[in-house]
Amino acid sequence: MKRIGVLTSGGDAPGMNANIRAVVRAGLAAGLEVFGIERGYSGLLAGVLRPFASHDVSGIVNRGGTILRSARCAEFHSAEGRARAAQVCALHGIEGLVTCGGDGTFTGARLLWREHGIAIAGTPGTIDNDLAGTDHTIGFDTAVATAVEACDKIRDTADSHDRIFVVEVMGRRRGDIALHTALAAGAEVVLLPECPAFDLAAGVARLRLAKEAGKTSMLVIVAEGAGQAGSVAQAIAAGLPGASVRVSVLGHMLRGGTPTANDRLLATITGAEAVRALTELGRDCCHHLGVVANQPVRTPLDAVIGATKPLEPGLLETLEVTAGLRPGQDG
Amino acid sequence: MKRIGVLTSGGDAPGMNANIRAVVRAGLAAGLEVFGIERGYSGLLAGVLRPFASHDVSGIVNRGGTILRSARCAEFHSAEGRARAAQVCALHGIEGLVTCGGDGTFTGARLLWREHGIAIAGTPGTIDNDLAGTDHTIGFDTAVATAVEACDKIRDTADSHDRIFVVEVMGRRRGDIALHTALAAGAEVVLLPECPAFDLAAGVARLRLAKEAGKTSMLVIVAEGAGQAGSVAQAIAAGLPGASVRVSVLGHMLRGGTPTANDRLLATITGAEAVRALTELGRDCCHHLGVVANQPVRTPLDAVIGATKPLEPGLLETLEVTAGLRPGQDG
Amino acid sequence: MKRIGVLTSGGDAPGMNANIRAVVRAGLAAGLEVFGIERGYSGLLAGVLRPFASHDVSGIVNRGGTILRSARCAEFHSAEGRARAAQVCALHGIEGLVTCGGDGTFTGARLLWREHGIAIAGTPGTIDNDLAGTDHTIGFDTAVATAVEACDKIRDTADSHDRIFVVEVMGRRRGDIALHTALAAGAEVVLLPECPAFDLAAGVARLRLAKEAGKTSMLVIVAEGAGQAGSVAQAIAAGLPGASVRVSVLGHMLRGGTPTANDRLLATITGAEAVRALTELGRDCCHHLGVVANQPVRTPLDAVIGATKPLEPGLLETLEVTAGLRPGQDG
Amino acid sequence: MKRIGVLTSGGDAPGMNANIRAVVRAGLAAGLEVFGIERGYSGLLAGVLRPFASHDVSGIVNRGGTILRSARCAEFHSAEGRARAAQVCALHGIEGLVTCGGDGTFTGARLLWREHGIAIAGTPGTIDNDLAGTDHTIGFDTAVATAVEACDKIRDTADSHDRIFVVEVMGRRRGDIALHTALAAGAEVVLLPECPAFDLAAGVARLRLAKEAGKTSMLVIVAEGAGQAGSVAQAIAAGLPGASVRVSVLGHMLRGGTPTANDRLLATITGAEAVRALTELGRDCCHHLGVVANQPVRTPLDAVIGATKPLEPGLLETLEVTAGLRPGQDG
Repeated sequence: MKRIGVLTSGGDAPGMNANIRAVVRAGLAAGLEVFGIERGYSGLLAGVLRPFASHDVSGIVNRGGTILRSARCAEFHSAEGRARAAQVCALHGIEGLVTCGGDGTFTGARLLWREHGIAIAGTPGTIDNDLAGTDHTIGFDTAVATAVEACDKIRDTADSHDRIFVVEVMGRRRGDIALHTALAAGAEVVLLPECPAFDLAAGVARLRLAKEAGKTSMLVIVAEGAGQAGSVAQAIAAGLPGASVRVSVLGHMLRGGTPTANDRLLATITGAEAVRALTELGRDCCHHLGVVANQPVRTPLDAVIGATKPLEPGLLETLEVTAGLRPGQDG
Repeated sequence: MKRIGVLTSGGDAPGMNANIRAVVRAGLAAGLEVFGIERGYSGLLAGVLRPFASHDVSGIVNRGGTILRSARCAEFHSAEGRARAAQVCALHGIEGLVTCGGDGTFTGARLLWREHGIAIAGTPGTIDNDLAGTDHTIGFDTAVATAVEACDKIRDTADSHDRIFVVEVMGRRRGDIALHTALAAGAEVVLLPECPAFDLAAGVARLRLAKEAGKTSMLVIVAEGAGQAGSVAQAIAAGLPGASVRVSVLGHMLRGGTPTANDRLLATITGAEAVRALTELGRDCCHHLGVVANQPVRTPLDAVIGATKPLEPGLLETLEVTAGLRPGQDG
Repeated sequence: MKRIGVLTSGGDAPGMNANIRAVVRAGLAAGLEVFGIERGYSGLLAGVLRPFASHDVSGIVNRGGTILRSARCAEFHSAEGRARAAQVCALHGIEGLVTCGGDGTFTGARLLWREHGIAIAGTPGTIDNDLAGTDHTIGFDTAVATAVEACDKIRDTADSHDRIFVVEVMGRRRGDIALHTALAAGAEVVLLPECPAFDLAAGVARLRLAKEAGKTSMLVIVAEGAGQAGSVAQAIAAGLPGASVRVSVLGHMLRGGTPTANDRLLATITGAEAVRALTELGRDCCHHLGVVANQPVRTPLDAVIGATKPLEPGLLETLEVTAGLRPGQDG
Repeated sequence: MKRIGVLTSGGDAPGMNANIRAVVRAGLAAGLEVFGIERGYSGLLAGVLRPFASHDVSGIVNRGGTILRSARCAEFHSAEGRARAAQVCALHGIEGLVTCGGDGTFTGARLLWREHGIAIAGTPGTIDNDLAGTDHTIGFDTAVATAVEACDKIRDTADSHDRIFVVEVMGRRRGDIALHTALAAGAEVVLLPECPAFDLAAGVARLRLAKEAGKTSMLVIVAEGAGQAGSVAQAIAAGLPGASVRVSVLGHMLRGGTPTANDRLLATITGAEAVRALTELGRDCCHHLGVVANQPVRTPLDAVIGATKPLEPGLLETLEVTAGLRPGQDG
């Protein structure tokens, strides 16, 4: 392999720049040429790419966003689109791609490999933490850090005014951001898409318990896939007459900001490993690069795409216990 | 004067704890007893107060919120309510009050002084920055810092996806938070309650200009008193076909968090000055303590209540110029 | 088991408070009484302890330091000292201890278990990340985050003035903080106590290479066990005539500050697991609680004390590659 | 005036980039061409400059450091050097300069104006806060914020281990950073170059008082011009037998980092005003642009250079009072 490309695709995630930097530099160190491709697959289709030198990725290890930008690309979902992408690769002599993104990104990449033999190394670039083959995904740590920092601020004003706050965080099908945020922020209740059983009625009952135990302020964290903050707040207000309930929707700010040290490290390791996988496996490379228990791990994309990673066991139980919401606890 | 009370009232603001600490310690240093009164005027009416020692305010200079909590108190709006408050003061020998809050807090305090001779020293505790007699209010700097940090994050994802973001910040009647945030975050447009002329249509025109000049991401800051983020976003989407517009409502997180060094300093200076004003003026004290051009300033509450502080001159012009939205600029 | 104690010992680490909170609340939820013991073993020997209620640990999940304080205790190194500690435990009916600390803390705790049958659950409270049986230790993530944030700032001024900075971080026998910091901050060189081969002369050669490749500013991270920043700077200045070299020693600030979400989570999980281990194993409990690959892990203290955890494989290689210091790379 | 230049000189300060951005964009909006000059006067002498477009300063409002870099330039101290600088200006048609820096920068600039008629607009770019004609200088707010954040962390570990910390901050001839930091961090003692009377012996006496009042941890802030942290710590240890004293030297990290909202605002306002001053005053412009009481202020450089701004009155007294170190206070 002599020339590879790198792109970021899907929702952006803090740490993508550190990933790009690692891919470019590890590629150059391995004697490859590395092309940066703009705006994901749509840039690939449009041929918007250029060779990157080492200094082109200077000073970006700590930058949020992605200098390559990202975009959705409907055309790449079709066989014709992918054929055109393969033509662009052939035109520029690109034999392998590092694709930083999530499940959707990998699904497209695998097709490009199957249909056209472009080698693929996928790095886990998504704040959702929903990929198998890695303890965490790039951007997840920063997203949780941002959410927790916001919750710390919100707890201050909740305390001052004896209020209940419902804080909505990103996560349509996946509750990891909500669950980690709730545990780290010391929230009383969390609502997750994966856990209909741990539902709103149970949550209200918990808040009532907390109030009886003497708590005057409370935090409820809601993953967007488990309900809207506004309607959750209404249900709480209905269930706890007299309570002052307010809402905060954190939204897209979770996607930006200086990446945490963890995200930079994960992005750097997986970026360097992606290059190694491409050079070692060549055309057989259609793999995902992750880190498990501090060790780099290479997994076939087949084993990652569509695989569901279960919620970490026991965390909901731990939340309930440490929030002081068990009988006999006084808040 | 031998005994004073301190309370925080109205919306909470970061720095209130540093203010309480300064009042307690400056009071003790002046040979006074200082009572902490919980939950503003409602705690005063209910007699929820206790003497504070110096160590009771240890370790709070950098804490968000207010250890005395805050609350609205409808009863204090009536003459009967204030009479009861005066009785509580008399019962406990409290001759003067330091009231940390905004215009509403001061209005009530002035009546207590007029009707019952309780000396009043008001410290400017509100994130809104809407008080005369001081360059800034306690909490404003932290609120702007929080908003700007959020906007920096949002700009990252806006850049990655070529998007326009509408960010709504607190400020019903006052645009200072929005205006300072917009300037510091490098926003393209700001919508303020004070400036109907700088309106939405003009804002959309500016965004169009910015787009033509080559800008691919843009930030619009809206004070809540100037419009809802959602409807502003709809108007922008209608006026800029093809634009990807998203919304973020920052809300209550602006009220919490570790206060900035500035807010701690302002709170510390005005807290110490409040005690000085009470001891020097005695029963004649019905004053506000601020800082103007780095100097402590004492102003009669009469000259502060209801006074409107104009927006800083030229800032809107500076925003437009530095955002690169004048003809001839290329974005 | 009906009553347990919790203490923090050795150098303090951010997240210890979250650990205490989890132990107290999980203990109460399990029907135990939980005593907080002040200043580690010295407080235990002196009998400075008291029962904790759930609300005693309210609002500390995000506080740096440890509300129980920490201290070194020479007396506990003697059999007499430990006998006295056991007497205090007997006097108060304490059958098990949760000890949050590092290798030294665990060594003493194991003797207390062996000699006097006090059950022990050790939680990994140290910024050094030098304990087996867990991917990370409590406080490590925050220490690295603080170091990286400082390095980001230092890089700004290094860039402005074309300077080389030598940044010294904590770590006498262990280079994890230095190595993670170097990777996340994009440093050019790191000096570690574990790697005499990756030595100063090689580091200077690397800096020379970087300079020739066009880099105008550089960062060198030094673990305190691998050299003093000042002497490293002198060596660099001698080896790179004309270079402007400056020094920054980060020191104790790495031990404080709001713990990161990760550290709070790790502290919360291991605290809850410590209580579970004590209740499940009773007098047989002499275990360490860690988290490996997102799963709680219980390990006999025998397998943790004195065990050396190797540096993560490949990270030094990754640093060199991603810093752009391989031949053929242009900086 | 048709063409101006902008440069940053002396020690770098956070906010310089926001200043450059404002100058470039305000200049373009005023119909001027704006040249960016690299590395201060040395770049001017060497003719390292180029025209800036609006997008050249995109995305830098929140970046630490200075994209124009900074440098000391001995040659500019000579008449020959300045003559050469004037030739470069003439060669490129540059009639006016915006110089962002401190007293030394302004001194050189004024000579260039006097000797060669180059119009000068000086913006206050220094973390030292030692310039007349402005409430604060660009970078000061960020430097204090960084120092206070570090002190908050240090206080955590000081509390955990019952320690005294001596924290040294930048400020050779000026104590503003130390004084503001001490007040905002709730330090017990501050040592300033301006106040030999408030000396080390008095400081030790204060610490003794604090200890007797029950304080178990203490912070001492030292401006580098008032003593070295190490020797201060030794003196304290000698004066307080048994005390555990540690040292932290914050150093250059105070110069970097994302500028605070305040610094960005100040930099933006003064940058825009600098262009206005040049266009309005033309060749007569040899002025400094500051902000006093929220209002832009234009002052002749003659009235700024060499002028000493006194320490804010009463702050030392306020520190002593609010630290709880007066007789009768209990810590």
